[in-house]
Amino acid sequence: MSDKIERLNQAIRRFYEQKELSTDLVESILYSVDAGGKRIRPLIMLEVLEGFGHRLTDRDYDAAASVEMIHTGSLIHDDLPAMDNDDYRRGRLTNHKQFDEATAILAGDSLFLDPFGLIAETDYPAEVKVGLIRELSYGSGTFGMVGGQMLDIKGEGRQVDLTELAQIHAHKTGKLLAFPFVAAGIVLQLSDEAVARLREAGEAVGLAFQVRDDILDVTASFEELGKTPQKDLLAEKSTYPSLLGLEQSYAVLDKALDQASAIFKDFEETNSFQGEKVYDMIERLRLNA
Amino acid sequence: MSDKIERLNQAIRRFYEQKELSTDLVESILYSVDAGGKRIRPLIMLEVLEGFGHRLTDRDYDAAASVEMIHTGSLIHDDLPAMDNDDYRRGRLTNHKQFDEATAILAGDSLFLDPFGLIAETDYPAEVKVGLIRELSYGSGTFGMVGGQMLDIKGEGRQVDLTELAQIHAHKTGKLLAFPFVAAGIVLQLSDEAVARLREAGEAVGLAFQVRDDILDVTASFEELGKTPQKDLLAEKSTYPSLLGLEQSYAVLDKALDQASAIFKDFEETNSFQGEKVYDMIERLRLNA
Repeated sequence: MSDKIERLNQAIRRFYEQKELSTDLVESILYSVDAGGKRIRPLIMLEVLEGFGHRLTDRDYDAAASVEMIHTGSLIHDDLPAMDNDDYRRGRLTNHKQFDEATAILAGDSLFLDPFGLIAETDYPAEVKVGLIRELSYGSGTFGMVGGQMLDIKGEGRQVDLTELAQIHAHKTGKLLAFPFVAAGIVLQLSDEAVARLREAGEAVGLAFQVRDDILDVTASFEELGKTPQKDLLAEKSTYPSLLGLEQSYAVLDKALDQASAIFKDFEETNSFQGEKVYDMIERLRLNA
Repeated sequence: MSDKIERLNQAIRRFYEQKELSTDLVESILYSVDAGGKRIRPLIMLEVLEGFGHRLTDRDYDAAASVEMIHTGSLIHDDLPAMDNDDYRRGRLTNHKQFDEATAILAGDSLFLDPFGLIAETDYPAEVKVGLIRELSYGSGTFGMVGGQMLDIKGEGRQVDLTELAQIHAHKTGKLLAFPFVAAGIVLQLSDEAVARLREAGEAVGLAFQVRDDILDVTASFEELGKTPQKDLLAEKSTYPSLLGLEQSYAVLDKALDQASAIFKDFEETNSFQGEKVYDMIERLRLNA
């Protein structure tokens, strides 16, 4: 796992060190890239690929890096004063506190614009590249992450019901968490049906991730989170615990993780999938009530 | 020309009306898209395509729309308080004044992330789509527009020499102005040599555009510009007029436009290019000293 993270970090550095233009910009981008994220999205993609018997090469790391870049860009913008106004992220100063707001805006913009060129330059077949780019763009833009973020902002300060909350999170975080599952299917050129199943698994993991985050916001400390806890409570945001209570929230989390695992069990039977590490990753998302 | 602008606007609307997620986000995006830009980048692409005898179809409008989307996103972010802090753009309130800062950040983010999906969904051959996406990403991200913008910010408040000024503008505005020329070559699947010539023409037009902008900042009024004039002077920014004087700046502008025209004259001889409208567009960038 740590070897994969190392190769993934190298893929991102390779992109940013291919030429030199603004060292200030690249410094700020790499500050946030290096801020110690768990690389969950790219790791999922790589583990799913390996589970299907695929031998990873540089281009797979590039494709996996692309989603981490967009995720990092979104964190930089989310932390801005006009958004969540966070001073710390993963226990370190946020980008705009370490540098300044203009730099943070531009670093995020870069991390949104660059990954498409990164994918375009890999040596995957053109159809695979187009598939990955389509998925990444729709997962992150107006009909994905950014659209969900806007829904989330518009939902603040008022009661949001469970359907709306699910809709917000399916887009704000769900699409980009589903990307690595779908992307693996695109790289492997699996059937549309198989890709649809991978998307289902991804959406379940996306839901699990959000419910988990909501639970941790209530139960964890600053040290455990690396950021200010109970922000949702303070912002009076509707969350799974606030709508369902903690016990039910744990149940929703477990159910989503079971669903994802079940889909991979099916793949074991029909596609000789062997993904111990995929199951491990899914299991690590569980929380003990 | 106005028919082309109409079809181009339709292409952008078609993208944003394909599904409904956050109407607030789409409203804010379309507010800035509809703010009356001259659509110079997409129009160049379409006119160059026609000049080579290409019959325009919807997908060409989609590809042309992609660069206008990124350009519009960059204007929204440039106007933010942490950047240029502009209240007006083209005589209307800027996005963050009309809505709020969080909305403007997200609208810009969307306009950076969406165009790659728009291109990916056209029915160009996959190789053409990959070529357009690579060019658009590199032209706009860390090694293009955003990188140039960062250089520009870091150059403020100190004397910048002509080489550095050219470097800043070649990236900040030049790459995205060269895109439509290069993109036309990619769509037409011209030789690498021909695409390189188109890139040269595009870079010359990009330089002309910036020199023109610098000259107008000194000579034009709010009504003529639709924004606050003499902002460069107030910000003590190095510009072509401040480094070369007005007369020399006019000469640089003319020379760049002549160079671009000459390249298309060459295409007339070897590729039966007929581009009266391309020459017209180039000529309209001239200013009378």
